[in-house]
Amino acid sequence: MTGAADLAVLASDRPCAAAATFTRNRFAAAPVLYDRALLAENPAGLRALAINAGIANACTGDRGLEDAKAQAEAAERSLGLPPRTCAVMSTGVIGPRLDIGKIATGLAQAAAELSPEGWDAASRAIMTTDTRPKVGGQRAGAASLFGMAKGAGMIHPNMATMLAAIVTDAALAPEALSEALRIAVDVSFNCISVDGDTSTNDTVLLLANGAAGPVDPHVFGTALTGLCTDLAQQIVRDGEGATKFITVQVTGAVSGADAHAAAKAVANSPLVKTAFYGGDANWGRILAACGYSGASIAPERAALWIAPGRGDPLLLGLQLVSGGQPLEYSEAAASAIFAGAEIGVLVDLGLGSGRATVWTCDLSHEYVSINGHYRT
Amino acid sequence: MTGAADLAVLASDRPCAAAATFTRNRFAAAPVLYDRALLAENPAGLRALAINAGIANACTGDRGLEDAKAQAEAAERSLGLPPRTCAVMSTGVIGPRLDIGKIATGLAQAAAELSPEGWDAASRAIMTTDTRPKVGGQRAGAASLFGMAKGAGMIHPNMATMLAAIVTDAALAPEALSEALRIAVDVSFNCISVDGDTSTNDTVLLLANGAAGPVDPHVFGTALTGLCTDLAQQIVRDGEGATKFITVQVTGAVSGADAHAAAKAVANSPLVKTAFYGGDANWGRILAACGYSGASIAPERAALWIAPGRGDPLLLGLQLVSGGQPLEYSEAAASAIFAGAEIGVLVDLGLGSGRATVWTCDLSHEYVSINGHYRT
Repeated sequence: MTGAADLAVLASDRPCAAAATFTRNRFAAAPVLYDRALLAENPAGLRALAINAGIANACTGDRGLEDAKAQAEAAERSLGLPPRTCAVMSTGVIGPRLDIGKIATGLAQAAAELSPEGWDAASRAIMTTDTRPKVGGQRAGAASLFGMAKGAGMIHPNMATMLAAIVTDAALAPEALSEALRIAVDVSFNCISVDGDTSTNDTVLLLANGAAGPVDPHVFGTALTGLCTDLAQQIVRDGEGATKFITVQVTGAVSGADAHAAAKAVANSPLVKTAFYGGDANWGRILAACGYSGASIAPERAALWIAPGRGDPLLLGLQLVSGGQPLEYSEAAASAIFAGAEIGVLVDLGLGSGRATVWTCDLSHEYVSINGHYRT
Repeated sequence: MTGAADLAVLASDRPCAAAATFTRNRFAAAPVLYDRALLAENPAGLRALAINAGIANACTGDRGLEDAKAQAEAAERSLGLPPRTCAVMSTGVIGPRLDIGKIATGLAQAAAELSPEGWDAASRAIMTTDTRPKVGGQRAGAASLFGMAKGAGMIHPNMATMLAAIVTDAALAPEALSEALRIAVDVSFNCISVDGDTSTNDTVLLLANGAAGPVDPHVFGTALTGLCTDLAQQIVRDGEGATKFITVQVTGAVSGADAHAAAKAVANSPLVKTAFYGGDANWGRILAACGYSGASIAPERAALWIAPGRGDPLLLGLQLVSGGQPLEYSEAAASAIFAGAEIGVLVDLGLGSGRATVWTCDLSHEYVSINGHYRT
């Protein structure tokens, strides 16, 4: 593990079983296409990962695919690894080509500096508009899990503009890793939103080198879900221009999918997000967002609570709506909650047992500043 | 036609055939529910419309429905009209109840001031965050059409936070009016976006009192579509905080629905909209938005043009992408186009004959300011 500015390398001293989830954007970037083929071909023999920040290698066509291959091969050469053992990730501006000469030079230098203590440098190297590195760790029996992530904008459920690399010394087959990763990503990275844009490059890669021996898959899965949730929430907290962390829960939906759709609509609504930014208890926008989410709704059964911090809204919150109608409530109390740095929202649709939680941030002047001039 | 602050009244000296389209938000406001029932009951006998701005009468439950009825009845009394002949519209904050006493007093005063020259006052009375009134007119044979609209935020295809009232002296049956309005709204109000939020109150109401006699339905439909497009574009131009007017065209999609989905995703993307605001030619975000829109895409067939003003991108534009790969182009030329006040975007997906056009505006600091403190 090592990282210089805009370049990070992870390497294992033995072959790793691997699993990954990728963006569903139809303009999937070259590194996504490269890794998808690599994992299909060599799911138990990966040795390394090379990440660059600054240029996404997306919308670059056939030449982009050649560049991704050249990036992987440069890392394999520098690390003395066999061909087809190194995965790649890229993040940054869409369109331009990678400067492979510069990357090869940087990778050779990074390979010479590999160290078990390199996580901090690596997690900083992959930052773009991130203001701080994002790392986390968990134990699973005799094994450890460690992960790092980047992402601050273009963040949306179903994979954000985010990269995450997770390594473990647990011994698990690729199939078991894939299943654990699918479940963990579904309730973590797929439940966050900064701006509703799904990127071309999103990747979560899990490498397991087996040094600690076998681990109970359930124990491993729980630890992996905990780690992914930790990293995902770090991304939201560092959302571009974010000043608040908001937990949106929807319960009582006719299905889990409906609950997720409603929670996502609230989390993505520019009107809800600017109201949170302004500390304005304009709760009607929350119900309005549920109303256009596509979820089944009976207005006369809807209820709404807001709560300070991350407490349970049913215990600590202020109920604003019951049976689809506004309650008498203290405007001062509502404003105090909306003015806080952490806010919980609970919408109960009163129809069934479907529930979902999504984490998001507010929409600020700073978000507009950052994204109005990202390239320039 | 008359209007005082926050209150407007339209009246006809004879019964009108009526047609309307309403929001698809599941939390449809009380005036929407009231008008829907009224038009079903009395589609050829409407006489008036009473609009208030400031409070949306949405998420107000049964009491909200009673208030909408009281609003209509107060107008009918003031105008000396039979019961069930006046429609209502409301726009403003979601949640609070209408002050019916104040509205009744205002309606009585408005009724006393009715005048054929009242359009300007009426179109100003219904403004909320609008910075200017929106009116338009068309001829259809011997008949005239005149309309006014309001809306600046919570604007999204499938009915924005917008109200539009259109009157004509053409003689057409309710069924013909409905068909013409459905077609006109589909390619006008349903093709604009400010922030992707679909409001609880959206309504377009068309009243035809027949004074000018019958009109060819095709001639009428063309005029109505022209008027709706005019009003819809006025709403986008006055979008909250908007500094630019952007025309997004998608061609070559496998279907019209796919083209519309892709164009909508581009128009709603906060990353695309902030790039336009910043004058940053970050075109990769445009393709990325198409990529997560759900539309069928073959990356290697995609092409992208940008153009200044409202000219045809194929004739006047700068091609940035061909066959899914970036072309060599002048960055100065691209930046000059992005810096303009009117910008055209054309994405050709190269797959079929589906096409769609959506109009939108940029996302600015001012949008965040307006919506962070709308109520306060």
